Formats: sequence, structure tokens, C-alpha cells
Amino acid sequence: MASTNSTTPAWKKKAASKRVAQFDSIPKEWRLSDPKPQPKNTYDFLQTSGLLTSSELRITEIIDAKALLAQIANGELSAVAVTTAFSKRAAIAQQLIGCCTEMFFAEAIETAARLDEYLKKNGKTVGPLHGLPVSVKDVFSVTGQDTTVGWTCGIGQPAKADDVLVSTLRKQGAVLYVKTNIPQSLMMSDSYNHVFKQSVNAFHRELISGGSSGGEGALVGALGSIVGIGTDIGGSIRIPANLQGLYGLQPSTRRIPYEKSGSREYIVPGVAGPMTTTLSSLEVFMDGFLAGQPWLFDPVLTPLPWRSELAALPKRPLKIGYYLDDGHVRVQPPCEAAVNKALSALREAGHYVFHWEPSEHEYACKLWEKAVMADGGKRCQLLCEKEGEPLIQGMVVGTEKDRLDVDEGNAVAQEIRDYQKRYLQKWHDAGLDALIMPVQPWVGFKPKTWVKSSQWVGYSSHWNLLDWAVLAAPIGVAEPEKIDVNAKPGDGRDAWAQHKPRNESDRFNWEQYDPSLVAGMPVGIQIVGGKFGEENAVAVAKALEAALRTSGE
Amino acid sequence: MASTNSTTPAWKKKAASKRVAQFDSIPKEWRLSDPKPQPKNTYDFLQTSGLLTSSELRITEIIDAKALLAQIANGELSAVAVTTAFSKRAAIAQQLIGCCTEMFFAEAIETAARLDEYLKKNGKTVGPLHGLPVSVKDVFSVTGQDTTVGWTCGIGQPAKADDVLVSTLRKQGAVLYVKTNIPQSLMMSDSYNHVFKQSVNAFHRELISGGSSGGEGALVGALGSIVGIGTDIGGSIRIPANLQGLYGLQPSTRRIPYEKSGSREYIVPGVAGPMTTTLSSLEVFMDGFLAGQPWLFDPVLTPLPWRSELAALPKRPLKIGYYLDDGHVRVQPPCEAAVNKALSALREAGHYVFHWEPSEHEYACKLWEKAVMADGGKRCQLLCEKEGEPLIQGMVVGTEKDRLDVDEGNAVAQEIRDYQKRYLQKWHDAGLDALIMPVQPWVGFKPKTWVKSSQWVGYSSHWNLLDWAVLAAPIGVAEPEKIDVNAKPGDGRDAWAQHKPRNESDRFNWEQYDPSLVAGMPVGIQIVGGKFGEENAVAVAKALEAALRTSGE
Repeated sequence: MASTNSTTPAWKKKAASKRVAQFDSIPKEWRLSDPKPQPKNTYDFLQTSGLLTSSELRITEIIDAKALLAQIANGELSAVAVTTAFSKRAAIAQQLIGCCTEMFFAEAIETAARLDEYLKKNGKTVGPLHGLPVSVKDVFSVTGQDTTVGWTCGIGQPAKADDVLVSTLRKQGAVLYVKTNIPQSLMMSDSYNHVFKQSVNAFHRELISGGSSGGEGALVGALGSIVGIGTDIGGSIRIPANLQGLYGLQPSTRRIPYEKSGSREYIVPGVAGPMTTTLSSLEVFMDGFLAGQPWLFDPVLTPLPWRSELAALPKRPLKIGYYLDDGHVRVQPPCEAAVNKALSALREAGHYVFHWEPSEHEYACKLWEKAVMADGGKRCQLLCEKEGEPLIQGMVVGTEKDRLDVDEGNAVAQEIRDYQKRYLQKWHDAGLDALIMPVQPWVGFKPKTWVKSSQWVGYSSHWNLLDWAVLAAPIGVAEPEKIDVNAKPGDGRDAWAQHKPRNESDRFNWEQYDPSLVAGMPVGIQIVGGKFGEENAVAVAKALEAALRTSGE
Repeated sequence: MASTNSTTPAWKKKAASKRVAQFDSIPKEWRLSDPKPQPKNTYDFLQTSGLLTSSELRITEIIDAKALLAQIANGELSAVAVTTAFSKRAAIAQQLIGCCTEMFFAEAIETAARLDEYLKKNGKTVGPLHGLPVSVKDVFSVTGQDTTVGWTCGIGQPAKADDVLVSTLRKQGAVLYVKTNIPQSLMMSDSYNHVFKQSVNAFHRELISGGSSGGEGALVGALGSIVGIGTDIGGSIRIPANLQGLYGLQPSTRRIPYEKSGSREYIVPGVAGPMTTTLSSLEVFMDGFLAGQPWLFDPVLTPLPWRSELAALPKRPLKIGYYLDDGHVRVQPPCEAAVNKALSALREAGHYVFHWEPSEHEYACKLWEKAVMADGGKRCQLLCEKEGEPLIQGMVVGTEKDRLDVDEGNAVAQEIRDYQKRYLQKWHDAGLDALIMPVQPWVGFKPKTWVKSSQWVGYSSHWNLLDWAVLAAPIGVAEPEKIDVNAKPGDGRDAWAQHKPRNESDRFNWEQYDPSLVAGMPVGIQIVGGKFGEENAVAVAKALEAALRTSGE
């Protein structure tokens, strides 16, 4: 806990006392004593430290939501036991890696008890997600809990009602128990804010957990949650999913409720989606959640239930485009290796894989930047001013010169729509089943590294601009020792070691690559499923999983 | 044709020569000689004048698209014969009621010939709309044709490509042959502009055909088209449909492609939808059109095919809310009678019908006004300035003081979304199948009557604000002789004759009611199907048709 004195600004005091309250919300028996352990790998530590009982370990290691739901439904596990185990694991994880914001375990366990009672009395579940603990990023409203989004001005303003995401989760039987950490402004791949401080990686405490759904990535990575809900406007689900070896689905907007998705404030809308350790969990969630028909309550949504038939393992050879390099920032070797591994497996399994030309993407990503900076940083400025809280260094939220007036905003929106239309046509003409590429051009960074850099999120943000569904899928871990950085890739580019930086972002990304730091960290890919292609992306991921299994044999 | 001289402004000359070219696009043998006949009822005139052959009459009197398509598919009728018959009928109708803008009959007949050839050669149709002539409002782009939208500045700029609506129509086998008349600015229920002049009602030349899809309403009403595509931002499909006794579907946005539907320029978006003489034609069109998957080409659309199961005749009693009076403008007696006739039939058929409270609507309709005037009339001003063309008197398009800046626009959009959310909840809580109310508060007007009035479109625009699907359905004809305007309605209101006007719009509407003028004109109702409730509205309309048939026996 930070010490405060009379010269401490009010916002700092407010933040500090929020952290005290936060710590107090952890039951005494789950608190770690000082000095707290500082394991490099929190996931390993949770498995081996003895802090969790064998029963708690057994429950939280069920990484397939389908199996967990089945065991609750058939009475093998009580919802109370499940909620308690995940709550405790989340509480300990929070103390090690700063992944949580609000924790409301007692309320969650009460909810679980009511679910157990219902099941006992009625012999059936309340819904398809009966008893499933679901964590949500601290941008969703849960009745009685703050929604600070990492701003001190949001402290002490408990939500008066659930938002549609949360009410649908409850309706379907899910148990809310914890909200997760984010960066101030949400415009950063590193989850740090003045209220809840730094979230770090579940597998390496020196590295970031990503952002903006970084707390969610860390919590699910540490198995403190089985399904976490993040949001994504440029990679904010996919990057933290990738950094913790998870599946992360960024759907097209209008499938999952999220207040900001339908707000006119955003020319490119953000979107909510699940992050899970397994593909099966992700599908079970989407199916069970959409069965709750959230479109009956949120006017922005489309009445599309989960289309299982489209998500089934394809029985035919797929046509998949890919790229390794978008021409703006060259990805670090392990990111390229992950894509290559996926491509080899797909080829071996008989799928048709071909190079896709991303040369238009640089233009499109600049358009994305214009759109997301369109308010000229005004929203963040107002939030800062409320408590006198400064903007965190390195946050790129736009300045006055980025602000677009009505006509400029309309023109950018029209340009985006024209681009979307052209790209739809390209996809259609090519007869694509999916596109595959890296998630982000790097493997891992230390906290606050971004302050020095101009971040390039073009690999991920391009798909937000199109509003297409993308699934981040884990492929393996970084094995820098197997990569010869002096080898020419054979596509006309220099070897990695001889790469000539193309611009500042590229230089930063190239120079920052530290093989010894990131060895063993998860690496994955993006599977782009197209507009409303959530099921399609899952289907292709199933084909990929099958191909990887075969090629691994 | 207007005479022009050297003092005539350039825009007037341009408009006059466009009208000459328009007349020239009618084949000589279909031209009416001067002085042109001026029948009161064009529909009757076309049946009896002998201008159409018995074969042409037989074809154009097939008002069920399903039957027409079947006869083309089985070779009973050639697409050429069908296209020719509708082209000729449209050409004559144009000369009588000013319903068309662009006419391209030769091209249409060529297209039809290719379809006939394809069918002959392949033994199958090119798609579900094979050979169906479809007329479109002059806001859609048809390659090679102007899209003036009634502005002189749009003359002589043929479209370089079809828009997605038109390309999907072609892909499904439809034949484009004519575009239809609109009011300048589209913001009027009376279709008049400086280029193509006045469109009048197919059943009464002294009365308007409505707007903004007024030419389309008149053309379909005169059976010069079997399916016409209009657009609607406040009633522009439903009002002309109602004035000509047609079905008119205003879908939720994102089902039917329309460039403006996805444009950020509009806080409340316009939407495209079909106008037909029968419910069956409307459903055949929606089914066949959506089977063309326009969402593969327009990024704004939702991948929802026509859900026939939701549009089937319901087998259970329905729960239907209604209102006769929105509290702002009292509807003229025949409009109320139409709703009452529908309600009686539904009650008799065993459906549950109850009064719905519309007291919030006045607030909502003011919000709609703010949204549609948000550009402060700038778009129209720019279009006027291009050729020095004046705005037509009575066009309400907003002025500088209505213009909203970015923050104001965002705030209005947020207020609308909150309202949408509340109304969704009300609908859901009430367990409604549909809502029924008048389409507009009047039966018919003479051209340019609006100039004197402040038009109230709240009965229709309320549903655009919600972005809900609404079907305008014909019920019968105005029978003022059966209505006692001195009878108290029994709900606390005064008799119509003793009505105390509530405001200027209400006074205008009340004073304008002229029983002798509107006797025998079509009157109908709106069936509100809810968000994405296109199929639902059709299902309820089927129940209503069945109920009316039974009650009529």
C-alpha cells in the first residue's frame, strides 16, 4: 500500500484508499502475508505452492468449460465449490500479478448457493452456463461494483444496474465474481493505471500481460478464471490472449453486448468477446451466452444465435491466405515461426495455403488511427480533469489536432466503409475460408516499455477497421534457440539480424527483441473469419488444432 | 414540356431538357398524344382505355409475384413478354401521373431476352426472382442511369456501377426497367421536384401519391410494377403504400442494402424496403432477394436470410397492442376506422387486443426531428447551390440553428439509444406480438398542401427512431358516409366535429379533412413487428388477412 501524506494529491489518496479497500475485499484466509512471494511464473507457483487445496486445484484445472458445466449439472461439483475455488485462485493471482480490480467473492458464493438450491429443487439448471464463473474486464457494469475503467474519478460510484452483458450472463446461469485490470484510457497494450497499478504476465512477472484486456488475460492465464470477457478496439482481446497462450475472440460488433459498441462517439467501435484456455470453452460460452438472446435487450445487437453448423470441424480442404509481414513493422522471429508452424500443419493436412497481399493495410491502419483519435483526446482529458489525475506517460489518446469535426468524421467513416466494401469483395473473389497472420509483431515486453515507443497495432487493428471476426489462437511457445536470425527468409527480405528498420515503430520492435527474455513465452496467430465470421473462425481453428495434432505425432 | 427562353435560369433549362429526354425515352408507340387524357383514376383508366392489349392487361394484373414467377419459370410466360407489358404500363402511367424518373425499357427487354435464353438453354432459372420486373426509387444507382434524387445538379451523371441493392436484384434474376419519382430532399410526403415535377395518386389525380417513395407508390398502385423498392426515414415507404392501398415494408436497417443506411451522416438512418399489392409478393421478394446474400457485398448488413418459419401464419392467439391517437395529432376518422376494423376482426378471430400507451412518443418524435435535422440543412443547401436551384417551399430540411456539432450529435444518438433500450424492454415485458396504429393522421391531400402546414409524421417516424420493422397494410377504403363525426368516441375525447386542436399540426390536420375529396381512397394501418421483426410483421399480417376474410363473410 502506498503511503500518503498531506502533500499527496487528492487523486493519489483516493487511489491508495481504493487499493486498501480492494485488498480488504479479499477474505483474510486468502491473503498472502508480507513479504509477498514474487514467483516468476505465477501459473506454476499456483500449481505447486500448496496455497490451493488439491480439490481447488482439481476444479480450477478443468480448462474445458463444457466438462465443468457437465459436472455441475450432474451434481458431481457444486456451484459453490466451483465458485469458491476460482475465487480463491483469482484472489491469490491478484496479489501476485495485479490482474483484478473489483472482487466480490461473498456475493458470488451466495449466487452459487442459490444455483445449487435451484438445481436440487428443480432437477434442472437455470441455463446453459449454470454455475460457470465468468470474470469480466472492468468496463462492464456489475450492480453494486465500481466501473472505474482505471480512472480515479470512477472510484466510489457503484453501478446501479447490470449492463446487458452482465444481465445476460446471470440469466444464463453464470456467476460473476471478479472484474479485471486495464490500462488507463484502454488505449495501450500494457495494463497499468493509477488506481489498480500494473498487471503482469501470468507466466513471467517481468513481462506485461498485454492490454487493454490485460488483467483478464493474466487471470485466465493463471487459471483464476475459465472464461473471461474482454473488449477490443485494436487488439485488446487478442494481444493479452496471445501473451498468455489463450484463445481470444474479437467478434464483429453487434453479437456481444457492449455499451461502447453502439456509441456514436466511436467511428471504429470496440467490441466485447471471450478469452479462454480452450477452444471448446470458447464455443460453449458463445453458444450458451447467445442462447440468452441479448438482442432482446440491447438495440445494437443482431438476432444471431451461435450457428453450430458453421462452427463444426470442416470436412473439406480449406483455402487460407496468410502473411508474415505487413510491410510496416516486421514481426519478431518467434511470431513468424508461430505462423509458419500453423501453415505447415495446415498444408500437411491437405489445406490450400497461399500468400495474401497486405500492402493496403498500412493505409487502412492510418485510417483506423484517425478514427480512434477522432475526439482529440477529449474524453480522456475530461476524465483526467475530474480529479486532477495526469494522463499516464506514453498513452496515445489523440490531441487537439486529431479532433475531427462532424464533416471530417463523416468523411473518415465513409472512407472506412468504402474500404470495408472493397475488402469484402476481395475476400469473396478469393473464395477465402480464413486469413492467418501474427497477432502483434512482438513476443513480450517489460512494463512501461511502450512509453519509449510508437506502438504498431496494425496486425490486429486492421480487422477492427473492417469489423470482422478474428480469433487469436495459441500455437506454442517462443523457441529463439531454434531460430537462426542470420538466415535469409527466402522472400527477398534480409535476415532478421540484418534487417534495416523501415520506420520508428519498426526500429523499436526490431531493437527490443530479446530472445533470452521471451524464451518459452506463448506465441500464437490470428485466424480471421470475416464479417460475422465468429463460427467460421472457430471452425478453422478446429481444423488447425486437428492439423497440429497430426503434424505433432 | 416547359418553354424556356434566355431569361430562364440555367437549372430550369437543364430540368426542362431532362424532361424532354425523359419523354424521348418512351418508345413512340407507347406515347400518348396531346392533349393527354386526365383520368381521375389512372388505375381504372388503364384497365378500360384499350391502350393495353388484353395480354398486357392479363400479365400486369397478376398481382401475386409468386404466380408470375411460376409462369415465367414454367415457360407459360416469357420474361420478355412480362417485361414488355410492365414497361408499357409504366410508360403510360408515367404520362398520366408522373411516377417515373429514368426509364430504360429497351435495356430491360434485352435483359429479359437473355433470361429467356438462359432458361431455355439450361432448363432452370438464374435465381428466385428470374424475370420479375422490379422498379426502384430514384435513390438507387443503376449503371448508365442518372441518380438525380430530384436535383438538377444530378442530371447527366449516369451511374458507373450498380449499387448493392441493384446488383443483388440482378443476381437473383430481377429485371430493372424504371426508376421512380421523389420529392426534392426526400423530406416530404408529397413527391414533387423541379426536375420530374409532380407525382400524383394512381387512384385520384387531384391527390398526392405520398412520399418520399411517392412515384413508387403511384407506379405500383397503377400496376405498372409488381414490386417496387422505396426507402423510409420517417414514413416514406409506408405513407405512399398506404395512399395507394399497398403493402409497404420498412425493415430494420441492416437487412436491405441502401447506401444511406450505413452512413454516419445520419443519426437516424433511412432504410430500403419493398412495396407490393399483395402480402405474398412482398414475402416472395424478401425471400428471393435475401437469398442473394447481399451481406457478402455490403459491410453494413446482417447475415439474416428470410426466416420463413417466423413469417408463417401463427397458429396461436396473438397479443396485440394498439393506439388510435398518439396525443399529438388526432387522426382523421377514416384512419381511425381502418384501425378499428382491423381490431374487430382480430378480436373476433380470438386474438388478444389491448390499448397501448403512446404518451412517450411525442418526446421521441422530437428527438427524431433533432436527429434528421442534425446537419442544419447543409446537404440540401449544397445541392441547391450547385445549380442555383431553390429549395422547394415547404421543405423542412433544417436550418443553421438545428445543426449539431460532434458532441451534440453524440448526445442525441445516446438519448436515442437509451430510448430504444427502454422501448425494447417495454415490448419484451408486455409479451407483444405486434403493435397496430394508423400510418399517418390523414387520408389524402392535394399536391403542395404541405407548404401551408407543419407536417406530423410521428405515427410513422417513431418506428424509424427505434429502427424497428413495420409493415403498412391496406385495410379498405375511406367511407366517410358511414362515419358520424358528431359521435363521441367513448374514450373521453370529443367527437371529431367538436375536436379542439392541440397544436398547429393538429389544427391543420383537423381542418383539412375533406370527406367528399377522400371518399373511396385506400386506408390502412401499420403493423409494428419489432426489431428485426420483418418476418413477424408479415406473420401478423397473415393472421389479420385471415381474420378480415372471416369477419367479412
